Order: sequence, then C-alpha cells, then structure tokens
Amino acid sequence: MSNTTADPILETDFMKEMVRQMRALDTFGTRDGQSDEALLSQFVITPEKRKEIPLVADMDQATLARVNVFYNAVAVLIEKECGRMATVMLSLNGEGFGRVIISVGKLLVVDKTLRDVHRFGFDSLSKMKTEADKLLSVALNIVGDHPDVAGM
Amino acid sequence: MSNTTADPILETDFMKEMVRQMRALDTFGTRDGQSDEALLSQFVITPEKRKEIPLVADMDQATLARVNVFYNAVAVLIEKECGRMATVMLSLNGEGFGRVIISVGKLLVVDKTLRDVHRFGFDSLSKMKTEADKLLSVALNIVGDHPDVAGM
Repeated sequence: MSNTTADPILETDFMKEMVRQMRALDTFGTRDGQSDEALLSQFVITPEKRKEIPLVADMDQATLARVNVFYNAVAVLIEKECGRMATVMLSLNGEGFGRVIISVGKLLVVDKTLRDVHRFGFDSLSKMKTEADKLLSVALNIVGDHPDVAGM
Repeated sequence: MSNTTADPILETDFMKEMVRQMRALDTFGTRDGQSDEALLSQFVITPEKRKEIPLVADMDQATLARVNVFYNAVAVLIEKECGRMATVMLSLNGEGFGRVIISVGKLLVVDKTLRDVHRFGFDSLSKMKTEADKLLSVALNIVGDHPDVAGM
C-alpha cells in the first residue's frame, strides 16, 4: 500500500475515476484496506488467465459490475471534457453478448458490440487505459463535429 | 376471423408490421389460427384491466417480447421511411424499469425511459398506433435535421 512505488498510471484521471467507482460499489467498505492497485487488478486478465476461463459461461454480478465501472468511467471523462452529460446504456443477454452505448444528447459517441463479457478484462492496466483513451478521443471528436446534436 | 368486419386500423403499415413480428415470434405456429385482431389484442390493456395488475411485479417473458415487438415495429417503420437501418436497444432491470433507444447511424431518434413495463399495454389499438406515429414522426424529424449524423 506504499504510494511511493505506485505505478504513475494510477495518477491519471481515468484510473482515479475507476478507483472512485470501485470504492463507491463497495458499500460495506470490505475493501477499504485494499490499495488502489489491488482494486484495479480485478480488471487485468492476462492471456494465460483468459485461457483458463471457459469459452461459454454464465456471467456473474461482479463481472457485470466491472463492465459498468469501465464504461461509466469513460462516460465521466467524456462528461468532464465536453461539459455535457454522458449516459451509459448496457444491454446483455445471459450468455455475455450484447451492446454498450454512451450517448451525449442525441449523439451516440460510443457504440460497441460486446462479446464474451464473462471474460471481460485487459492484458494490463496500461492496455485498459489505452482502450479508454481511444474511446474518449473518438467520442470527443464526434461531439466536436456535431455539438448541436450533442446539445439536443 | 372474417376480414370483412376488420378494423381499418389493421390495414396500416404499422399494424401489419406488428402482426408480422408477432407471427415471427410464434415459432411453433400455435397461433396460426388466430386472427390478426386477436393477436394484437394482447397489446390492449384497458384502464380497468390495468388496475388489476399489481403495482410491483416481476416481468414475464411474454411482456418483454411485446415491448420488443412494439419498438421493433417502430424501428422498421423508421427504416422504411428514411432508408437507413434503425436499431433498437432495450435495457430493463428485473422490476420493469429501464430505457429503450432507437438509433439510426450515430443519431438517437427515440430515447425513452420505461416504467412499470410489467403493465406494458395501450388503452386501445388506436392509442397504440397514435403512440407509434408520434415516435415515428419525432424520429423522422431528427433524421431530417441531421442526415449526416444518421449516415455515420
């Protein structure tokens, strides 16, 4: 838990938001003693670990919560950058297929098909941040191109 | 089942699409003998009938299917009128609250908060058609105002 050795990636706005959301979910404070790094490690699934997860499986609530946290954090960043409310909507079937969108006004700024959500995770925290940055940058471009629709 | 006495509303594009979708759901043809009117009567919940449905209740699959059929039919009509693909996305919690959107390209043309979905239905077929017409007209206006975003 020493902050001196902390990965600098944890100091980015995105990672701070991820931690904030994970702690908010932890209603009973059972993870208050965990470091930010330990909390976020739940999002890391190395290729080896991924191979161990069955191809087809039911989704558990913890995985679903992590998917929500990731896209909510992206939405918060979009909101901060463009100053307009961004809303996440997630629709999944029991087998972990579905779609996630983030809308700003009447504009779809993120629109992704989800597959194998029961194996949701990233190779590393840095890969997770790269994915979030990509989504953010595309979203802000769309808002920038159509500010009128984003304001509807 | 005599078509001579059929309500003229059943001849509208929207009602025909509703029937088409209801028959498509009926995989085993158990309702092949039912008239269109009988099929669509499932969407009618008179105020008296509505009072009998408990305020809080779990949603059954048949109700969920009807919600999907209604918004899918609206999407098909949007698609026919504007010539672009319209996609429905429905997200509900177990208690029947949620949100439904219809998107065309990157444009949200329908965006509705759903409440009490376990009591989904309309006072009459004509009220159902009015609601669909309203959604259609707003959606086509949005597409007309922002054809570039609808084409994204």
